[in-house]
Amino acid sequence: MRRIPYDEAVRTMARALAPHLNEKNAAHLAAIFTQNSLEGVYSHGINRFPRFLRALESGSTDARVTTPKKVSGLGGLEVWDARFGVGPLIAEASMARAIDLAKTQGIGCVALRHNNHWLRAGRYGLQAAEAGMIGILFTNTSPNMVAWGAKEARTGNNPLVIAVPHKKGTVLLDMAASQFSYGKLEVTRLAGKRLPIDGGYDIEGRLTRDPGAIMQSMRMLPAGFWKGSALSTLLDLVAAAASLGRTSCVIASDPGDERGMSQVYIALNFRAVVDADDADTLVDQAIDYLTSSEPADPASPVRYPGQNLSAIRAENMRQGIPVDDSTWDAILASSGA
Amino acid sequence: MRRIPYDEAVRTMARALAPHLNEKNAAHLAAIFTQNSLEGVYSHGINRFPRFLRALESGSTDARVTTPKKVSGLGGLEVWDARFGVGPLIAEASMARAIDLAKTQGIGCVALRHNNHWLRAGRYGLQAAEAGMIGILFTNTSPNMVAWGAKEARTGNNPLVIAVPHKKGTVLLDMAASQFSYGKLEVTRLAGKRLPIDGGYDIEGRLTRDPGAIMQSMRMLPAGFWKGSALSTLLDLVAAAASLGRTSCVIASDPGDERGMSQVYIALNFRAVVDADDADTLVDQAIDYLTSSEPADPASPVRYPGQNLSAIRAENMRQGIPVDDSTWDAILASSGA
Repeated sequence: MRRIPYDEAVRTMARALAPHLNEKNAAHLAAIFTQNSLEGVYSHGINRFPRFLRALESGSTDARVTTPKKVSGLGGLEVWDARFGVGPLIAEASMARAIDLAKTQGIGCVALRHNNHWLRAGRYGLQAAEAGMIGILFTNTSPNMVAWGAKEARTGNNPLVIAVPHKKGTVLLDMAASQFSYGKLEVTRLAGKRLPIDGGYDIEGRLTRDPGAIMQSMRMLPAGFWKGSALSTLLDLVAAAASLGRTSCVIASDPGDERGMSQVYIALNFRAVVDADDADTLVDQAIDYLTSSEPADPASPVRYPGQNLSAIRAENMRQGIPVDDSTWDAILASSGA
Repeated sequence: MRRIPYDEAVRTMARALAPHLNEKNAAHLAAIFTQNSLEGVYSHGINRFPRFLRALESGSTDARVTTPKKVSGLGGLEVWDARFGVGPLIAEASMARAIDLAKTQGIGCVALRHNNHWLRAGRYGLQAAEAGMIGILFTNTSPNMVAWGAKEARTGNNPLVIAVPHKKGTVLLDMAASQFSYGKLEVTRLAGKRLPIDGGYDIEGRLTRDPGAIMQSMRMLPAGFWKGSALSTLLDLVAAAASLGRTSCVIASDPGDERGMSQVYIALNFRAVVDADDADTLVDQAIDYLTSSEPADPASPVRYPGQNLSAIRAENMRQGIPVDDSTWDAILASSGA
């Protein structure tokens, strides 16, 4: 692992993207990869760049498509098509559209079909919160999780994000429906560690804490057993039905990479219908109540979801952003350095 | 346990409600209690009636208030106030309003403050699905769940519902953020059974499968550990901020019963923006894919969320609705029988 300064990370990845994207999009996409790692989501930031680049090179991701195309709409609800383009740029544009809709409609919802991996889901929740709105968004994935009672992985881990603006830092839920995200499995395996609790099944069908064994079987355990399983099924159906996009079942039938997911972006312009200061006070009070709980371990104060983010960002800005050695070497090579 | 015919259950509870509500509302509310049990949600149906009646008698629930009052709105987003009235009737009216909004706005959202217990959350999801829409709704509760890393219960189990229309029966997620709902603890305790997995802590702080011990400590375990905990925090903040209602923290400060919750009702009129037949086909195909998974236990086929509902309804309609003996005796007494 080494630590790369922010600007160097952006510059290097932007160079690697230059054959595929115009200068503005290359720089912005490189910044998205960098910021995701900067804020501690290493599994969905720079470490994922080589895989992303391969998808651009193979054509699995269409580099010519960087914006979604509108399909239909009624009031605050619109359907857009990402046309297998550049996932993170299209995700950002989709949340921006939901925010715009919410400005006049109170609530805005973009149902997006055929988008490729958006990297870090939470980013688009933060985007809504920065616009002063509540963000709710989710995506489906290829089937990588065992539905409750099943032997095979036939449902996705379908990340769900909910973000609420908060003066001390956005309150941010960014969770996969599996007990662990695939990225967390990867990072834990790379670190040679085991998971703190069972995270899935090995190829023999036994529950295990070994991330490598789970990645081999592709059978992740749903968070909360039947609950995460049911949540995943519903998020898949809502995203695919509302966008007339692909369900996890259809994504699985695509012979190549995981691509063409269905996603939903909701922005709630609550400050247009309630007093913003009063709402802020409510949120502050609830967060104080939560974080002043007596901790089970006196050395670990109770935190609110997303609380660590600004401290991690500050540390990584100061010390450089952690990147796997081999990954950074590969990125340097592809940037022509 | 005895089995009560549907009509007798409605008639008996309507009589018990007659001192508090007009004839139409009494009959309708009695039907809600009955239908919840009819469809197998015994913890949030007839078995809860005596407690509900006590709340009416004490004034904790204001029987004079059976409809919400509009506070503000912009486009598809409206804030309504339930004024501590009759929870299930106001919940139904709120989802009906969200559905109406979605007819012209594509997506409709009612943020409701000060509502009392809505009984079975899933009911209002089914209501959206019956109108041909996707329903997403949630409520906060009094703090009954231990946030991740905490020793005390300072977050609610905040039920979340997602419903998608489906020809063979609505696909329905109806889940509390705790691994088990409080109602499930009650029912399991009444049956003298233990939970299949750990469901919370006893008063000594040990994880346990004993529902009585968890009800004593009021420390339920979040589903998926840190995931259910974070989900619960976010649902609480969204519902309270969007409605300018009470957070779990404020609900806890009310000296009486759990009352005056904050709730969000969203209806997604997806059939207005995509081809309804194509969307139905997608959902059918995904459900077939899921339910044709090889089961872990050959005797237990994989089911979709909500699949059991129509079979349970049919059986209970035929054989009568299961009600605890002592509960039914109490209901008979309060109905003047």
